[in-house]
Amino acid sequence: MIIVLKPTATKEEMNHIVDMIQKAGLKTNVSIGDHQTIVGVIGDKTKLSDMPIASLASVESIVQVSKPYKIASRDFHPDDTIVDVKGRKIGGGNLAIVAGPCSVESEAQMMTITKAVKESGANFLRAGAFKPRTSPYAFQGMGEEGLKLLKKAGREFDLPVVTEVMDTATIDLICEYADVLQIGTRNAQNFALLKEAGKRNLPVVLKRGMSQTIEEWLMSAEYIMSEGNKNVILCERGIRTFETATRNTFDIIAVPVIKEKSHLPIIVDPSHAAGKWQYVVPMALAGIVAGADGIMIEVHHEPEKAISDGAQSLKPKKFTEMMKEIVKIASVIGVGENLKIAA
Amino acid sequence: MIIVLKPTATKEEMNHIVDMIQKAGLKTNVSIGDHQTIVGVIGDKTKLSDMPIASLASVESIVQVSKPYKIASRDFHPDDTIVDVKGRKIGGGNLAIVAGPCSVESEAQMMTITKAVKESGANFLRAGAFKPRTSPYAFQGMGEEGLKLLKKAGREFDLPVVTEVMDTATIDLICEYADVLQIGTRNAQNFALLKEAGKRNLPVVLKRGMSQTIEEWLMSAEYIMSEGNKNVILCERGIRTFETATRNTFDIIAVPVIKEKSHLPIIVDPSHAAGKWQYVVPMALAGIVAGADGIMIEVHHEPEKAISDGAQSLKPKKFTEMMKEIVKIASVIGVGENLKIAA
Amino acid sequence: MIIVLKPTATKEEMNHIVDMIQKAGLKTNVSIGDHQTIVGVIGDKTKLSDMPIASLASVESIVQVSKPYKIASRDFHPDDTIVDVKGRKIGGGNLAIVAGPCSVESEAQMMTITKAVKESGANFLRAGAFKPRTSPYAFQGMGEEGLKLLKKAGREFDLPVVTEVMDTATIDLICEYADVLQIGTRNAQNFALLKEAGKRNLPVVLKRGMSQTIEEWLMSAEYIMSEGNKNVILCERGIRTFETATRNTFDIIAVPVIKEKSHLPIIVDPSHAAGKWQYVVPMALAGIVAGADGIMIEVHHEPEKAISDGAQSLKPKKFTEMMKEIVKIASVIGVGENLKIAA
Amino acid sequence: MIIVLKPTATKEEMNHIVDMIQKAGLKTNVSIGDHQTIVGVIGDKTKLSDMPIASLASVESIVQVSKPYKIASRDFHPDDTIVDVKGRKIGGGNLAIVAGPCSVESEAQMMTITKAVKESGANFLRAGAFKPRTSPYAFQGMGEEGLKLLKKAGREFDLPVVTEVMDTATIDLICEYADVLQIGTRNAQNFALLKEAGKRNLPVVLKRGMSQTIEEWLMSAEYIMSEGNKNVILCERGIRTFETATRNTFDIIAVPVIKEKSHLPIIVDPSHAAGKWQYVVPMALAGIVAGADGIMIEVHHEPEKAISDGAQSLKPKKFTEMMKEIVKIASVIGVGENLKIAA
Repeated sequence: MIIVLKPTATKEEMNHIVDMIQKAGLKTNVSIGDHQTIVGVIGDKTKLSDMPIASLASVESIVQVSKPYKIASRDFHPDDTIVDVKGRKIGGGNLAIVAGPCSVESEAQMMTITKAVKESGANFLRAGAFKPRTSPYAFQGMGEEGLKLLKKAGREFDLPVVTEVMDTATIDLICEYADVLQIGTRNAQNFALLKEAGKRNLPVVLKRGMSQTIEEWLMSAEYIMSEGNKNVILCERGIRTFETATRNTFDIIAVPVIKEKSHLPIIVDPSHAAGKWQYVVPMALAGIVAGADGIMIEVHHEPEKAISDGAQSLKPKKFTEMMKEIVKIASVIGVGENLKIAA
Repeated sequence: MIIVLKPTATKEEMNHIVDMIQKAGLKTNVSIGDHQTIVGVIGDKTKLSDMPIASLASVESIVQVSKPYKIASRDFHPDDTIVDVKGRKIGGGNLAIVAGPCSVESEAQMMTITKAVKESGANFLRAGAFKPRTSPYAFQGMGEEGLKLLKKAGREFDLPVVTEVMDTATIDLICEYADVLQIGTRNAQNFALLKEAGKRNLPVVLKRGMSQTIEEWLMSAEYIMSEGNKNVILCERGIRTFETATRNTFDIIAVPVIKEKSHLPIIVDPSHAAGKWQYVVPMALAGIVAGADGIMIEVHHEPEKAISDGAQSLKPKKFTEMMKEIVKIASVIGVGENLKIAA
Repeated sequence: MIIVLKPTATKEEMNHIVDMIQKAGLKTNVSIGDHQTIVGVIGDKTKLSDMPIASLASVESIVQVSKPYKIASRDFHPDDTIVDVKGRKIGGGNLAIVAGPCSVESEAQMMTITKAVKESGANFLRAGAFKPRTSPYAFQGMGEEGLKLLKKAGREFDLPVVTEVMDTATIDLICEYADVLQIGTRNAQNFALLKEAGKRNLPVVLKRGMSQTIEEWLMSAEYIMSEGNKNVILCERGIRTFETATRNTFDIIAVPVIKEKSHLPIIVDPSHAAGKWQYVVPMALAGIVAGADGIMIEVHHEPEKAISDGAQSLKPKKFTEMMKEIVKIASVIGVGENLKIAA
Repeated sequence: MIIVLKPTATKEEMNHIVDMIQKAGLKTNVSIGDHQTIVGVIGDKTKLSDMPIASLASVESIVQVSKPYKIASRDFHPDDTIVDVKGRKIGGGNLAIVAGPCSVESEAQMMTITKAVKESGANFLRAGAFKPRTSPYAFQGMGEEGLKLLKKAGREFDLPVVTEVMDTATIDLICEYADVLQIGTRNAQNFALLKEAGKRNLPVVLKRGMSQTIEEWLMSAEYIMSEGNKNVILCERGIRTFETATRNTFDIIAVPVIKEKSHLPIIVDPSHAAGKWQYVVPMALAGIVAGADGIMIEVHHEPEKAISDGAQSLKPKKFTEMMKEIVKIASVIGVGENLKIAA
């Protein structure tokens, strides 16, 4: 940590700060410039993390030097983490293709879509039974009945299932049915939920908060990991900006940034990023080429009749075409050998 | 709702859409322009809310005309809502001055600060016992012990207390101690929590999500209100933008916008908006002049030693000066007769 | 400037960087932490400003410590700058009330509006003759004919005139008619134009770029000032964010931030910030209370017929009411003694 | 255009609006809903474009239905535009590889870099002689001397040259040396410059303003095209958001959005989007896969010594590796047959 003093700071003020830090058991390194003085702090900065040095009149700014996350950082874990879900691997060149409808709607719907995505190469099934909706008047999901249908479809077609948990009160219920927990963008800083997910033994897909910086997102992963659960899969799903032509802005540079700063796998969700099906395929391909470890895609056989997110869902035929393109492109960049498409 | 067709849409495509809508029991009004056709939809649009018309190839865009919130809307409730908390009124010219430290730290700290803010005119006490922190390694609050100290201080100085609830699992506990629930910016779309808060009989301060539009914020209020709890107090606390000189960007125009669109009271939180104590006073005054029904201010007698948010906390002396300015300015614009400052 | 090395940086890499800096004639201060090493740089950093140390594999980040602007900084000029325009002062407690229509439309329009705003206490007249419009098909302004009408109205009612310059090719023409140059939000980083404005002897109202940080805005002021023209008046007019209920987000905290960092006067433009006339008055009052040195307000006697920006223009009657409120509030906070309203 | 009336609007107010529109020579279509009335406007809306209907007390909002740009719209020009620069084509499957240093620094530097990028498959040379810099104290470019060196290098290695024009006062000078004009992000709404560029017979690379919506960007293209110059190449270079890990946020969905809305070619500039060389290669590949018609890449043989933008420049060896990947990936998606790499 570096403390930048104001040009007007006196020697007494400087000494006062150095004292405070040394009393907290840390070392200092003072650098007196022509115009401004800076005080470097050496040692375990968590001792200082809640000391509001920034409120001192003599301080211009505080600069954090070391990363605030540890377990999620590549500094302490140089090798890529590979998450294993019932034998399906994510990371280290293994691509996760997570596909399915936005919401579980009926058994027939689940069976139709699951069969289609499995044949086209999906290796995970996704669908929501508890739905976070902006409006209290919109469909809120089928609840446990939906979880049952989801699990049934997953078993029938041998696909591990991913589904969203929205609250600590329902996490145990969801763990009975899910193979992977999903924490959504609106709960990315629901710290009580993150901690609970950290205490379960299911892998967690952690979507980025729609206005979360990459550093804050890794801090949310740290919440889960610091409770013991190391199987976190990050999911970039678009951030909120001024642009209105798309539902969100797909922050694709987050893929190489995460690869540099963390060892965790990262997948991308172009369906939510774009919000319109016609932009989904190019964004899925771009995500793979950018280095993502997989994609999460909304698929519906009758988007016109989908209860939610129909506008951004691919039809199975389009999904199949996309998967063929993905297999070709993945082989050029040397990943995705795990993918299997029914001939 | 208005459906804008693409210039290339055929007559068959138009008829297909009109059919869909009429089958859902709604009326249509078709307007064929020189270049584009638009289809107006008349009736209860919730029937269509989950029908993904936008996914049709012939549709260019969908425009929502009516507001998606009802109970929170001024259209259906023209008069200002005045929230009554144990005889203290908020709204309708009555200003809420909610002050206190960021976190409960000790009994001595709570008593010192509560005494100071009460004497200077605060009419509500705020402090957190469960703290949402970006880092899992930062102080997470004193928990129930903190709630006890908060309640004790409130009783001692006859101030109703406001404190944050972070999770459905702890809401009952918090209701035992609090007079007003606070839902924080990171939980502004924690829909499970909003629903639970809607089932309690305590007023709720609903902070704006840091990337929530005003419309989405009112939808979050609608979640609470649609469960039966009509006593919602909105709190503007800054939104996330590209500017880094301040912790957030204080969206002060939200005050008159909310006053126009909703009947709910709105207060402002310049401490979190600014993030630096030196900007807090002018922003508090500006908020009052802009029409806010109150302010929420972090106060600490020893900001240098505060466990959290010291940089944005006012010292009691500064708070007192601010209150004197507020009383003068409020009287010019004809509000705040409820305020009392110890001579 | 501080250079933060990666945890993996070797001693050789550190020495290489220290060498580079010392060869550039600067001193270094190395601080070796438990986990990371940082190198402080002491001396005239402009020597390093274009040396891409950040591109070195061993460097994690570069932190700028000193402010990149000099002449605009309060560090080097502690007293408030007071700009004098033909005897009207801006800054130091003197409020500028800059009012008028968006565009010059006709002589009758200019005379009607100028008379009205003068009587209500405006001390500057504003109107555009060269208009920056998003669409090439929208009205582009009356050009020189408009400048003549503007000047005539200003003379008739003894008000200095403010008008926008959009291009270096027309700056001489505009200087013939204007008393104050305005540089608009879309040209806030048109560096050729800033330099030319810096060579003229007219004061400049510099609007903030709609996505400019406060620091970048002061750098744009520095462009003007470094050419010799010290009479810069900053104008906060709203920034671009995700919120769509208003035209822009009015960044009112910019007022105290600018007051802290710079000695230049700052005014606010609530008309462009809000984009809707009904939000203008509370924002103007808030701006004054926040410490602004004045306001810029669009006024039109027939907003329904205005060629541009009618939706955000106040009618003269509303403007008069607002001015009465401003005078009252300004006196409470001890500014605005220069204001005069016809009884 | 659709006018949404307030629920409280009276019949008289509705009639007044219908009258206004019909007097402007347009037709109306009124749709009276249960709750709100909407008025559709049919005909040439430019007649209404400057009529501030939104300022009427009875109007809740105005919705624009038709696109505000015409010549740039795919509606009126269904086939892709292919820009031809001295025989090099951009668009329609032909990839532009625009490479070179940020700034012209010396003849030796230009010759070294140009030779390297040419051999690796670049088909355009880029470098700046007039540089837009945030600080007036930073290197402002070599000016005409730089243009001469740029042209000489282009001739020597048979590459058309792209260089930035910052001001109408220097556009004629730049046209003497350049093959393609570049308009930068800070001048994306410098309307005087756009108009002048529209009057020249050189193709224009139009970078997106850093806070420009896609629609506004196409309006800027429309400014150029409406003056007669149809050879506009759009360039996505990142937008400004809250994320600070990268220089900008690379809005890659803009590629398919532009392809849907416009017939103009679009290239991407991952160097400026990312701001760090280590993220450039994956973003360049992603851009191509997303459907871009080319890339603009900063290359420098000695980034440590580059006068500007060294941190985001690729070394020639890295550029060569990237080009090999691009050729492979482009062939998978069926584009880029025009590319030639020296064996």
